[in-house]
Amino acid sequence: MRIIIIGATGTIGKHVVNALAENNEIVKVGSKSGDYQVNLTDTASIKNLFEQVGPFDALVSVAGDGHFGPLTSMTDADFRVGINSKLMGQVNLVLIGQHYINPKGSFTLTSGSLGEDPIVLGSSLSTINSALDAFAKAAAIELENGVRINTVGPDVVEESPAYFPFFPGHIPVSMHRVAQAYVKSVLGAQTGQAYKIL
Amino acid sequence: MRIIIIGATGTIGKHVVNALAENNEIVKVGSKSGDYQVNLTDTASIKNLFEQVGPFDALVSVAGDGHFGPLTSMTDADFRVGINSKLMGQVNLVLIGQHYINPKGSFTLTSGSLGEDPIVLGSSLSTINSALDAFAKAAAIELENGVRINTVGPDVVEESPAYFPFFPGHIPVSMHRVAQAYVKSVLGAQTGQAYKIL
Ligand SMILES: NC(=O)c1ccc[n+]([C@@H]2O[C@H](COP(=O)([O-])OP(=O)(O)OC[C@H]3O[C@@H](n4cnc5c(N)ncnc54)[C@H](OP(=O)(O)O)[C@@H]3O)[C@@H](O)[C@H]2O)c1
Ligand SMILES: NC(=O)c1ccc[n+]([C@@H]2O[C@H](COP(=O)([O-])OP(=O)(O)OC[C@H]3O[C@@H](n4cnc5c(N)ncnc54)[C@H](OP(=O)(O)O)[C@@H]3O)[C@@H](O)[C@H]2O)c1
Repeated sequence: MRIIIIGATGTIGKHVVNALAENNEIVKVGSKSGDYQVNLTDTASIKNLFEQVGPFDALVSVAGDGHFGPLTSMTDADFRVGINSKLMGQVNLVLIGQHYINPKGSFTLTSGSLGEDPIVLGSSLSTINSALDAFAKAAAIELENGVRINTVGPDVVEESPAYFPFFPGHIPVSMHRVAQAYVKSVLGAQTGQAYKIL
Repeated sequence: MRIIIIGATGTIGKHVVNALAENNEIVKVGSKSGDYQVNLTDTASIKNLFEQVGPFDALVSVAGDGHFGPLTSMTDADFRVGINSKLMGQVNLVLIGQHYINPKGSFTLTSGSLGEDPIVLGSSLSTINSALDAFAKAAAIELENGVRINTVGPDVVEESPAYFPFFPGHIPVSMHRVAQAYVKSVLGAQTGQAYKIL
């Protein structure tokens, strides 16, 4: 299977690469790193990525920024960082990528746990995570040629200790469990699911 | 209580006005209709609305457009109609309005049922509806001075027959039940809730 991984060098992405490397061809993509580069906030850059990479069987996105900060001083511009990157960046990987992916292929996007379990300073990311889960659920009933789509939504991960102070009482999740959720999405047969790793 | 209703002349909004009219001062707002006008896609217009209207106790939004169409031909521009109007328009009513609302006031936004129960052609609205529900859940834990926030998410309503063909098997919901959900949000004491009218 030929698998594009966006964010392949990231904290989570590098574990996803390792978990899927055996028996598959991995195409690593980052904004600066990887075999190919893409800017998720630019639809022309996304289209160019698919033109360069050619046919593929699965796309995994483990990338996308969002604003983290107090609601009381949040602005439209703050909120749109995540709208443009984590939300529309990943939505556009599907809107554009559906015209390039092989039949029976799959898309796996990354959301998170904050939609259902909000924390102080996280309102923009809560919004975006639930948006992505709902997008996958809805897109699953329209994608053609047997193409599937799921999201993986981890709680804070064990290798991101800088985030721990903002997640009081959360038990950081293991990279093994997180990486296996991406494997389940890519090698399994389900669609329209939001795999929460809590 | 002084209640701003955005979309006061709409299919749903006019029933919300009727349900809340007794004992309250209603400030009706539309894009062209109403006591005041606002363009939800323009933050300057939203700020101007609050400057003009002055102090208020509750804001109810029953407005916001989104794109309805096939995923297979959907573009970033299509998707952003709803991002800019129904999602960010309503989010910005809160981000800006939190600096104008009276203590113990409330925001009530409108989402829908498509996030949990998608239909063909509805992927953009599914995304936006769940985004709004999660925004309210998250914003509820950060709003200050006892200010509350909820969403109301109706299934297709009985007075929108033009939409029925797109909602096979859905039982249109009564305007009475829908309007009462807004009353519950404004006159009740709950916060962070998504009231689904199914
Ligand atoms: N860490 C957590 O605890 C956690 C928990 C739940 C969800 N998440 C979500 O998981 C995703 C990845 O998080 P992470 O902690 O692994 O991030 P990370 O360590 O910062 O890695 C980000 C990866 O994405 C790439 N990237 C960044 N911006 C990009 C852009 N505009 N276009 C294309 N690629 C881009 C980076 O490549 P370059 O270095 O080449 O830019 C890098 O490979 C994020 O969406 C995050 O919200 C994280
Ligand atoms: N109808 C349904 O079955 C249904 C079901 C679930 C959810 N919803 C949601 O409920 C909301 C209202 O739906 P509806 O069917 O009642 O709509 P509608 O009949 O088209 O009414 C829309 C109202 O919003 C105002 N408005 C429109 N664009 C605006 C803008 N850019 N800025 C400020 N005000 C604006 C209109 O005022 P002007 O005439 O002055 O422009 C009108 O009062 C929508 O978000 C819709 O997605 C509807």
